[in-house]
Amino acid sequence: MVTTHVFIAVSLDGYIARQDGDIDWLLQRDDPTEDHGYAAFIADKEWIVMGRGTFEKALTFDAWPYDRPVLVLSRQLNAGSLPEKLNGKVQFSCRAPGEVLADLAEQNVHRVYLDGGQVIQSFLREGLVADIVITTVPVLLGAGKPLFGSLTQDIDLTLLSSRSFPSGLVQSHYRVTSSAPDVAH
Amino acid sequence: MVTTHVFIAVSLDGYIARQDGDIDWLLQRDDPTEDHGYAAFIADKEWIVMGRGTFEKALTFDAWPYDRPVLVLSRQLNAGSLPEKLNGKVQFSCRAPGEVLADLAEQNVHRVYLDGGQVIQSFLREGLVADIVITTVPVLLGAGKPLFGSLTQDIDLTLLSSRSFPSGLVQSHYRVTSSAPDVAH
Repeated sequence: MVTTHVFIAVSLDGYIARQDGDIDWLLQRDDPTEDHGYAAFIADKEWIVMGRGTFEKALTFDAWPYDRPVLVLSRQLNAGSLPEKLNGKVQFSCRAPGEVLADLAEQNVHRVYLDGGQVIQSFLREGLVADIVITTVPVLLGAGKPLFGSLTQDIDLTLLSSRSFPSGLVQSHYRVTSSAPDVAH
Repeated sequence: MVTTHVFIAVSLDGYIARQDGDIDWLLQRDDPTEDHGYAAFIADKEWIVMGRGTFEKALTFDAWPYDRPVLVLSRQLNAGSLPEKLNGKVQFSCRAPGEVLADLAEQNVHRVYLDGGQVIQSFLREGLVADIVITTVPVLLGAGKPLFGSLTQDIDLTLLSSRSFPSGLVQSHYRVTSSAPDVAH
């Protein structure tokens, strides 16, 4: 069985990027002297699954930021879209969330880092997210790409831990408990 | 000078109520044995300023929930809309945020509790919110009335404190620092 795990930063009003993908508001508020736990988080994840937007953003960085194999979920991109230097590091799939996890399970993968708003939303809607580490940045953007989206029913979470940093980040770790039929509308 | 202060609960995806105003999802997760600080918050507030939606929701409660004078900002409602039992407890105004605060200052008011999504958003847009206590409830609703809205520029916040409760609520207290021209888009 493959479990998926989210580790993501959002503005206080819930955006993971501006509408054009810009995350300077986030980078400007990142204090490199603080350990926000990414290294500990990624240590036991074998693959990273992301959407096209996150992939294309990563391509703009000076260096490829991931040291795990990456699976990009996209109907538009395929291996032909891949810069040569990323051969062997990135694969593409246009399959649905459950099928993607079945494919990874066949490769003996157990724990996946899930990244990107659209991908996180689609896995959440299918009940395929195990837990979420959400780091809230003390800024209101007013618009952008939202972390969360529409649902067919409420999703209950259990808070596992929460901590704050001198920089003003608040990081909370939630287990996705289940859908909650008793409070569904 | 009048300062305004926000104390509000939101779902993890940023909603203060379902689209129809329902807050059962919040009440169901309220642990009455936990002190979330409302009494300490309200102790030094002299007036409550809210919008029509919050007012009409409060009217549905068994008892009128506020022990402070309430000013309802509405273009539709006026004193004629007021149930007799609330005479002397509720006033109405259709004035803009800055004018409302000037009106209250003339009555020697200093600290105001600001409630309701639309009202909070309009005061935030005009730079008229001093601080925000935001309590995040561990549930995703997928839709509803959002706490925050569009802005003309970023708003910077300073985290003053953050704490979590056994029920899973995470409460963070932010001072509204200022607009941040250096990160405006």
